[in-house]
Amino acid sequence: MNRRKRIEVCFTPGEYDYFKGNFEIVVVIDVLRATSAICAAFDNGIKSIIPVPTVEEAMEYKAKGFLVGAERKGQIVEGFDFGNSPFSYMNPDFKGKEVVLSTTNGTKSIDVAKDAEMLVIGSFLNLEALCEWLEKQNKNVLCLCSGWQDKFNLEDTICGGAITDYLLATGKFTSVEDSSISAKYLYLSAKNNYFGFLKSSSHRSRLKKLNLNEDIKYCLTPNQTRVIPILKDGKLVQLQE
Amino acid sequence: MNRRKRIEVCFTPGEYDYFKGNFEIVVVIDVLRATSAICAAFDNGIKSIIPVPTVEEAMEYKAKGFLVGAERKGQIVEGFDFGNSPFSYMNPDFKGKEVVLSTTNGTKSIDVAKDAEMLVIGSFLNLEALCEWLEKQNKNVLCLCSGWQDKFNLEDTICGGAITDYLLATGKFTSVEDSSISAKYLYLSAKNNYFGFLKSSSHRSRLKKLNLNEDIKYCLTPNQTRVIPILKDGKLVQLQE
Repeated sequence: MNRRKRIEVCFTPGEYDYFKGNFEIVVVIDVLRATSAICAAFDNGIKSIIPVPTVEEAMEYKAKGFLVGAERKGQIVEGFDFGNSPFSYMNPDFKGKEVVLSTTNGTKSIDVAKDAEMLVIGSFLNLEALCEWLEKQNKNVLCLCSGWQDKFNLEDTICGGAITDYLLATGKFTSVEDSSISAKYLYLSAKNNYFGFLKSSSHRSRLKKLNLNEDIKYCLTPNQTRVIPILKDGKLVQLQE
Repeated sequence: MNRRKRIEVCFTPGEYDYFKGNFEIVVVIDVLRATSAICAAFDNGIKSIIPVPTVEEAMEYKAKGFLVGAERKGQIVEGFDFGNSPFSYMNPDFKGKEVVLSTTNGTKSIDVAKDAEMLVIGSFLNLEALCEWLEKQNKNVLCLCSGWQDKFNLEDTICGGAITDYLLATGKFTSVEDSSISAKYLYLSAKNNYFGFLKSSSHRSRLKKLNLNEDIKYCLTPNQTRVIPILKDGKLVQLQE
């Protein structure tokens, strides 16, 4: 009898319906830049983040006096003070605070998967800490890539592939979906040079045009923090082991 | 000014909506086995194929006396004489005939993209002929993979990646989507040994359980025919150059 747990990769929020129900843990990934920013935020002492899917909801929170960030198509939405650049969250004024965040892709994925038994946040920044924690849980794991405007993207897939590769190597997990197998192959092709591999990625080009090269470099550098953000009662908080 | 045409890969019929409208030619791919069977059928002298998305429509045609094939989950649907094994279509009785076909994934993709300016059928079987023809058209090309029950599959992606790699190498085409870039990478990893590469593919395992190894070998062998099936007025016919 095969007692191994599953580790699978779902490429876009739109495909989540075909996967859900079979995985106790969903890892939401939006490398450029929502989930990287969320990891950076907790690493810098933010207390909690309320993810909201729409700009309208973000505005309602702003009207109530919350600290609110909103990003669409790579840029800060007019009327908001910050977007999803990880550097925004390194502001010392944010320490110990609760912030609200709405982004093009990442907070949409969180919304889609919010009913999962456990929803955690993954990025290259917390890759090792996350993989080590996942290995210990003995649960089925789904990496939910956020994509770019409902389409597949390479950087989230490679991050999902890195998690898949790690967990398969423990011998405690198996993958049966072609998406997971492909994510692992793409990760193995990319792992020695994420930056070079993603040179031709569409989203990277998009952000480069917006002068966000520093953000990209930061987001593609693995293992900068041990935080694992987890969704509890609609808020992201830092997992306490 | 960039006058190059686009060659892109869409991983599943469900994502077609995010691509459509920008491509004059859609290449529908369902390697295991619908589009391979369709190529084999024309190579063996079948006159035309009416693709229908549902089993109900297939039954209506059967009631009217048509030759009708129907496959679901890799097996022939009860009450029909054949499914989507390419070998079924090598029956000499089918020569010059019109047949009706409904399959799990392939005919669904054809239905989704039926309003494209040109819809042609791709598989490893007609890869070279198709690529050479596409190169000459000077049109934007989308490879629409059929996937497996609305999820990504590896064999269709690799076939789409092969077409992408060929057209990019001509210098007349460009790809901007991460899905196309990834399909090309996966093809380059797979090209010297499709069979080995796809060993772990989920659909291949599924068909293997159904004793369809001979079908798989046939469907993964490139360039067995020069036919290019094209959709005209709701029927697939052989393209006459």
